[in-house]
Amino acid sequence: MSSKVVEPRSAASTGGPINEYVGTNFGRFLDELIAWLKIPSISALSQHKGDVLQSVDFADGLLKEMGFRTEVWPTKGHPSLFAEKMTDDSKPTVLIYGHLDVQPVDPLKLWKKPPFEPWQEGDRLYGRGTADDKGQTMMHIKACQAILNTRGRLPVNVKFIIEGEEEIGSPNFETLVNEHREQLSNDAVVISDTAMVGENCPTISYATRGLVYFDLIVQGPQIDLHSGGFGGAVANPALALAKILSAMTDAKGRVTIPGFYNNVAKLSKEEQRWFKRARFMAKELEAAAGVPLTGGEKGLDPITRVWARPTFEVHGLVGGFLNEEGSKTIIPSSARAKVSMRLVPKQNPDQVAKSFERYVAKLAPKGLRVTVRRLEGGGPAFLENVNSPAMEAARKALHEVFGVEPYWERCGGSIFAPDLFKKAFPKTPVIMLGFGLPGENAHAPNEWLDLKNFKRGILTAARFYELLGRANRN
Amino acid sequence: MSSKVVEPRSAASTGGPINEYVGTNFGRFLDELIAWLKIPSISALSQHKGDVLQSVDFADGLLKEMGFRTEVWPTKGHPSLFAEKMTDDSKPTVLIYGHLDVQPVDPLKLWKKPPFEPWQEGDRLYGRGTADDKGQTMMHIKACQAILNTRGRLPVNVKFIIEGEEEIGSPNFETLVNEHREQLSNDAVVISDTAMVGENCPTISYATRGLVYFDLIVQGPQIDLHSGGFGGAVANPALALAKILSAMTDAKGRVTIPGFYNNVAKLSKEEQRWFKRARFMAKELEAAAGVPLTGGEKGLDPITRVWARPTFEVHGLVGGFLNEEGSKTIIPSSARAKVSMRLVPKQNPDQVAKSFERYVAKLAPKGLRVTVRRLEGGGPAFLENVNSPAMEAARKALHEVFGVEPYWERCGGSIFAPDLFKKAFPKTPVIMLGFGLPGENAHAPNEWLDLKNFKRGILTAARFYELLGRANRN
Repeated sequence: MSSKVVEPRSAASTGGPINEYVGTNFGRFLDELIAWLKIPSISALSQHKGDVLQSVDFADGLLKEMGFRTEVWPTKGHPSLFAEKMTDDSKPTVLIYGHLDVQPVDPLKLWKKPPFEPWQEGDRLYGRGTADDKGQTMMHIKACQAILNTRGRLPVNVKFIIEGEEEIGSPNFETLVNEHREQLSNDAVVISDTAMVGENCPTISYATRGLVYFDLIVQGPQIDLHSGGFGGAVANPALALAKILSAMTDAKGRVTIPGFYNNVAKLSKEEQRWFKRARFMAKELEAAAGVPLTGGEKGLDPITRVWARPTFEVHGLVGGFLNEEGSKTIIPSSARAKVSMRLVPKQNPDQVAKSFERYVAKLAPKGLRVTVRRLEGGGPAFLENVNSPAMEAARKALHEVFGVEPYWERCGGSIFAPDLFKKAFPKTPVIMLGFGLPGENAHAPNEWLDLKNFKRGILTAARFYELLGRANRN
Repeated sequence: MSSKVVEPRSAASTGGPINEYVGTNFGRFLDELIAWLKIPSISALSQHKGDVLQSVDFADGLLKEMGFRTEVWPTKGHPSLFAEKMTDDSKPTVLIYGHLDVQPVDPLKLWKKPPFEPWQEGDRLYGRGTADDKGQTMMHIKACQAILNTRGRLPVNVKFIIEGEEEIGSPNFETLVNEHREQLSNDAVVISDTAMVGENCPTISYATRGLVYFDLIVQGPQIDLHSGGFGGAVANPALALAKILSAMTDAKGRVTIPGFYNNVAKLSKEEQRWFKRARFMAKELEAAAGVPLTGGEKGLDPITRVWARPTFEVHGLVGGFLNEEGSKTIIPSSARAKVSMRLVPKQNPDQVAKSFERYVAKLAPKGLRVTVRRLEGGGPAFLENVNSPAMEAARKALHEVFGVEPYWERCGGSIFAPDLFKKAFPKTPVIMLGFGLPGENAHAPNEWLDLKNFKRGILTAARFYELLGRANRN
């Protein structure tokens, strides 16, 4: 593939040599990214275990070549890559988080071309991992390279932690961070694994929603019963499940679990302004969803509902006769739902889980056995203080490169790395600096990355390190 | 297999030669039944098409041997067997309905022994089709044989219509009956395909519940959406489905579809007495269900609820993430339920279907597409007049053979043959004379028939024909 160099349309200059270096070498950067993308490092599938290792090796090679000291950190699952280049003890240290594993690619038939043979269409580079997260991780690697090859040395101490299990819910990452706490010590964490709120809308994400996930099972008779012989006598587990789920929200779309909203903080005036500025996103959300935005709480705008309000969702329903065609007249033996609650800052996942369990027990009808089982992988919401020198450096870098005042976003999704880093390094700001775009199909077929933003991401990262180097250590 | 002759414990004698003949030949009857049961005539599975034909041939052979004139009636699906032996034009004609196809046998691993190698345990003969319906059909065949071999001629004209598609919902049976209306003309229809209300409780079923069956689909976004990025913005189809289903019944267990109970008749005093006498059945129902009988309308006893009250049931739920293990955070693209309403006499299936459709449309939330699709195979409830000479003959025959006054039962299930015969022969009483037992596993693994009742069934049928022959033609 011949890589076409693309230029940010409206980007302000970040100044001479680095901008020039990135421009000159952009084709090579792209080729290297494509080489990395060709490795099908799907962490969820055991047959790709070797590919995850190859993905580690590839990043390892790039960083070693730039003079980074690297270590492959094993876990019970896939390993992660650590790399560091210490410049000056008196300078701040930035810890960059990315991941080198990717999502599965099914349904394969919906891909226009093979997911691990990246292809370019206009400004878009398509392929699994382009946006999530090899492309974004590569931005930081190339930012360091650009600085090293133009200035000779980095303006801050730089550490990379590039995870190999993000797409399977980071089952070993907390252990890994705790085991290597000393080596990972830092003055600022940058996570580049999110998206901007829109085209040419540089974005800092300062919050994520939390998650509590449950299996909910209603058990009736040992076997399916004939609905003729037993209908009216035996309670129907599928109907009972529907009634329990139905009771979880009211006509206004509010979650009815007792105490659910107790700790939910109101938005500050500043946040209200930020949210208002981002309201245009609702149209993009609606276009991506293909349906009107009629979910959630009535009376609130969609951006507020997704960014700052907790929800109750049903992810799966299974019970009784599952065939699409035909009829079967049974009272199902049991029915099951997968449900979760998205949480906002100050909601305690354990308390919410307990309230949910108590509420379900209260709703459970006589004659049926209703059980809930909390699943692993959830966690609290995250909220970062936006007033820190590192945040200011990120804001300024984005503004300079994009020529636009950055947007302050709250992530509707649940990313657990920020909270985990905050636990390990309570005094360190965690900055989510994402360069993806809405509609990038991060976990879907035909994932893509805008190459204008690949370039802007490199320039922003380089500028951020520079500004951070000038700031006092936190 | 050596067949042990079993004796009804408390059966009164039906008198000399027939009783004696049945006693002497019972082992052979059983061997013939077993030979029929060995033919895996599963109508639902195309690989058993030949077996259904073999099952037709087997019954054909038995009846021909007894001097019946037989015809195999083809349909678009499996054929049915017609047989007749006309004795005397001045005598009444009885039309006996049975079926020669059987239910599928999955899950096979739950069978104690192979389903098509019948085995005896005590008084029970196990195997697919023992109770439903080869065993019961064979009772009538052997009753005729006993009479012919002792008296030389039948006391009534006898016609058999033995269906080959009952277990797939009789898709071609109405057409068949209409095509052969003349040949099937009769003075009484006897259907032996039901069960008695309990051990030593001879039973006449005089009613069945009707059925209206629907697919209910809630369609949201074209694809599953991430519940982080869209949760709170996009309405959740699985939750919406739960709310629609939940709204179908109230806290008292009553169906809330507008007008649903409009035509539901109250029970007569006589029926109330019959129902009261059968209340002991609730314990058997409960034992068979393995759960307390907490379904249906509060304030009514379980027998009334199953026999004479309409219901709303959910048979299947499917939506989004179906795995038993693991979690996935999606807003499902769609969710689907299979539902039905059991109807009682005087409820009009089309009216109920329309009310349901209108109600669902009213409940459908904005932003989601809710569709209902009525499935084939339903029909109205059936209610027979119990005051006819043929009914009296059946009652008397049962009383004589069992030594117990028969129970009058309403079937909770939906059997469409009675209504279909009533449409074809409006003046003819339809008598459901069943010799199965509760817990016989008719559609489940380890189906069985009580051999005491196999014998009683033969004797009852023989006595019924005799009494019917003495009655005036209807």
